[in-house]
Amino acid sequence: MRSRPLLHGMEVEICGWVSKIRDLGNLRFILVRDTKGILQVTLARKLVDAKLFDLTNELTIESTIKVKGVVKTNTLAKATGGVEIIPSFIEVVSIADTPLPLDTSGKIESCLDNSLNWRCISLRQQDSYNIFKIESALVQGFQEYLRDNEYQEVFTPCLIGAVSESGAETFEVKYFDRSAFLRQDPQLHRELTIAAGFEKIFEIGPSFRADPSHTPRHLCEFRSCAVETSWIGNELDTMHLESELIIHALKFVKNKCEKEIKELGVDICIPKTPFPELRFPEIYTILEERGKKIVRGEDYDRESEKILSQYVKEQYDTDFFFVNRFPAKAKPFYVMKVDNTQWARSVDLIYKGMEMSSGGQREHRYQQLIENLKERGMRTDTMEWFTKFFRFGVPPLGGFAIGIERLTMQLLNIENVREVTLFPRDTGRLFP
Amino acid sequence: MRSRPLLHGMEVEICGWVSKIRDLGNLRFILVRDTKGILQVTLARKLVDAKLFDLTNELTIESTIKVKGVVKTNTLAKATGGVEIIPSFIEVVSIADTPLPLDTSGKIESCLDNSLNWRCISLRQQDSYNIFKIESALVQGFQEYLRDNEYQEVFTPCLIGAVSESGAETFEVKYFDRSAFLRQDPQLHRELTIAAGFEKIFEIGPSFRADPSHTPRHLCEFRSCAVETSWIGNELDTMHLESELIIHALKFVKNKCEKEIKELGVDICIPKTPFPELRFPEIYTILEERGKKIVRGEDYDRESEKILSQYVKEQYDTDFFFVNRFPAKAKPFYVMKVDNTQWARSVDLIYKGMEMSSGGQREHRYQQLIENLKERGMRTDTMEWFTKFFRFGVPPLGGFAIGIERLTMQLLNIENVREVTLFPRDTGRLFP
Repeated sequence: MRSRPLLHGMEVEICGWVSKIRDLGNLRFILVRDTKGILQVTLARKLVDAKLFDLTNELTIESTIKVKGVVKTNTLAKATGGVEIIPSFIEVVSIADTPLPLDTSGKIESCLDNSLNWRCISLRQQDSYNIFKIESALVQGFQEYLRDNEYQEVFTPCLIGAVSESGAETFEVKYFDRSAFLRQDPQLHRELTIAAGFEKIFEIGPSFRADPSHTPRHLCEFRSCAVETSWIGNELDTMHLESELIIHALKFVKNKCEKEIKELGVDICIPKTPFPELRFPEIYTILEERGKKIVRGEDYDRESEKILSQYVKEQYDTDFFFVNRFPAKAKPFYVMKVDNTQWARSVDLIYKGMEMSSGGQREHRYQQLIENLKERGMRTDTMEWFTKFFRFGVPPLGGFAIGIERLTMQLLNIENVREVTLFPRDTGRLFP
Repeated sequence: MRSRPLLHGMEVEICGWVSKIRDLGNLRFILVRDTKGILQVTLARKLVDAKLFDLTNELTIESTIKVKGVVKTNTLAKATGGVEIIPSFIEVVSIADTPLPLDTSGKIESCLDNSLNWRCISLRQQDSYNIFKIESALVQGFQEYLRDNEYQEVFTPCLIGAVSESGAETFEVKYFDRSAFLRQDPQLHRELTIAAGFEKIFEIGPSFRADPSHTPRHLCEFRSCAVETSWIGNELDTMHLESELIIHALKFVKNKCEKEIKELGVDICIPKTPFPELRFPEIYTILEERGKKIVRGEDYDRESEKILSQYVKEQYDTDFFFVNRFPAKAKPFYVMKVDNTQWARSVDLIYKGMEMSSGGQREHRYQQLIENLKERGMRTDTMEWFTKFFRFGVPPLGGFAIGIERLTMQLLNIENVREVTLFPRDTGRLFP
C-alpha cells in the first residue's frame, strides 16, 4: 500500500474504488479512493500507452482498480493532496454495474432505510469510515486502560439456559430439543466469573434485546464493554473506575483519531473527574422543581434523564453524570440494596442526555439474594443455578456495562444508533 | 491489593479465599488464596488479640476473608513464599457452606461433568486460573499484531436473516414474528465489510454451531479471531499473514505468562515460518502411502488430519501446517476455485493434529459467485442479500478464523475443550 507523504517522483501502487471520472477526450482524470483518502490518476493520451488509456474506457464509478505509477506534483489537484499519479500499469479488477443503487459522493442524501439496504455501498463514504475508525479506537482505549490496570479479558456465554429478568425482552433459541435464550447482558456470568476467583475482569461482546421499540437509540443486537471487579467498598468504587475508564478511552480516541475527528467536524471534550452524582430520592425534588412529578419510590423515565442532564449542564457544565440509588423494586434481584432502605446501589451513567451504562454493587450475600428474589415474587428454584454459588464464598463485587454504539453515537453527535453499527439489527431488519 | 515481593516488616492487606486451615489449639494457620497465589496468615493466641483469634473460629474452607497485617519472614512457610502475615485486622466477608460440593485442593479428581456443574468452585484451582490467563494473553497477542499492522477491529452481527450453508448446524432464533439464525462464522459479514471499503479487518467474537456431536473438541458456542484482508494476490497471502499472526501471539504469551506456563508444566515452542503447506490432490498420495485410501476428488476426514500431522512432524519437525486446495465441492459457495479445476483456494491450519482455522481466498467476481451457487444446487435468490453487493466493485479478498479455545487447548496440551472455556455450551449443557 502507499505511504504518506507522496513525494514527486515516487513510485506508488494504489488499490481502491473509482470515485469519479472526468473525461476530456484526450485527457482523463480518475479519482481513486481507499481508506487513506482519494488520489487523482491522470491519463493523457499523448503521455501514456494507448492500451492503458483504452483499459479505462469502460470504467464506471465504484469499480475496483489497481494502479502503479509515478507521483507528480500538481498544484491544481488540491482536493487530492496536490499530487497526481501518472500511471504505468492499470488493472481493472471489477467493473461496477450502473446505475448505482445509491449515490456515493455524499452529495445526494439517501433515506436511512435505503442506505441500510445497500449498506456496503453507503459505508463507502469517508464519514462512515471515520465513524468506525473512532469506534474501534474507543474499544482499544477501553482495553488499554483495563489491561494496564490488571483487568483480565474473559468470554462468557451468549447462550443461557434461563432468563433472569422478566423474559419479555429475551430472544428464544431452539437448542436441540429444548429452549435457550440470548443474554440481555453478560451480568450474571460476569458475577460468576468473580465468584470463580477472578479478581478483575472485562468482556467486550454482544448482547441481545428483543425490544419491540423502533427508536433511534435501540438495537436488538449491540456491543458492550462490561467490567466487573471484586473487593469493592461500595458502588462508589465502580463509579470511580468507570469515570477513569471513560476518560482514558476518550483521550485515546482524541489522540489516535485526530484526522477522523476533524473530518467529522466534532469536538471531543475530555470531562473532569469525579463526574457529578445525583441520587434518589433527591432526584424527585430536582425533577419536581423543573415541573416533572414522579411518585416517590417509583422509577423515572427518559424525559427525566433529559431534564437531569440539563440540570447537570447548568450546575456543573459537564455532559457526563451518574444517577445512583434507584428505587430497588425497579431493579433486578442481583442488585444490592442500601441495607434497610428501599434504595439500590444501582448506578446509571448518563452522557448528553442518554443512558450509557447500568451497573453498581451486586448482592454477594446468599441470604439477601434469596430475599431479593422473594420480594420480587420470583421462584428461587429457577435461579438456583446462579444463586447456589453464593453459598461458597463470594467477595463484595460490582461493575457496569457500557454500550459501545451508544457511546460512539453521543460522542460524535450522531442522531441514529444504526449509523454507528456496521450491520444493524432492529425489529424490522435482519439484512444485510 | 498486595505488591510483590513481600518484605519483612511490610504492612499488607490481602483479600481472598481460605484454602486451608491448620488448627493447633493456640496456634492457627490460615492459608489465603488470591489470583497472585497463596499466603499464610499466622494467629498465635499469645501474640494476637483474642477477639481476632476468635473471629476465625467459625471459618471454613472457601470462605472469603480480608486480612491486614505485617509480613514476617518464616523459612518454614516455603510453599507460601517464605513469609507469613501476622494479622492486626480480620474481616470474615462470607462463610462458605460445608461440605463443599467439590474438593478445591486439586488433590481429589472430580469428573468433568461435576466440575462443570460446580464451575465457579472448580475454577478456583490455580491451574484453571493459569489457563484463562494464557487464553486472554493469546487474544491480546492477536490484537497487538493486527493493530500494529493496521487491521481495524469491527463488530458484525451474530443474528443473521438467512443461513448460508446447509442450515443443519444452525441455531434458529425466534425473532419477533419471524426466524433469525445465529452465525456459524462471521464469514459473510466480514466479506461485506471489505466490500464496504474497509481494507483490513478483524473481529473477536462468538460463533455458534448446533453440532450434535458430543466430543472433547466441539462446543456449541465458541470464540474466534476472524481476519479478513483485501487486495491479496491469492490464498498464499492469507497463509503468510496467519502464520505471522500465530507466531506473534505465541511469542506474546510466552513472554507475558512465563509463570503460568511454568506452573502448568508445558513447553511452548515458537514454530518456524513458513509453515509447511500440503495440497490436494498430492494429499491423497501421502495418505495412501500411509494406508489411508480416500477417493480422489473427495474431502478427507479427521483421521487424515492426524496422519498428515504425523507425516509433517517426521518430514519438517513442526506441529503447524496448512492444508490447501481442498476439493471445491466440499466447500461453501463463497470460496474461490483455482480457475478451471475442481480445487479450491481453501486453507485449513492444523496444529498438533487438530484443525485450528479455515480460510483462504474468497470469490469476489459476481458471475463466478452465482456459478458457484448454481453448481451446489442452491437458490440464487435466497443469497441475493449477500451477492448483490458483488455487482458494485469488490476487491480480491481472503481471510481465516482461528478458534481461540481450540488453539489454547492444543497449546497447553489439554484434552477437553470444555476445560479452556469458562462456561461451556454443548449438546447437553446450558448451565451454569
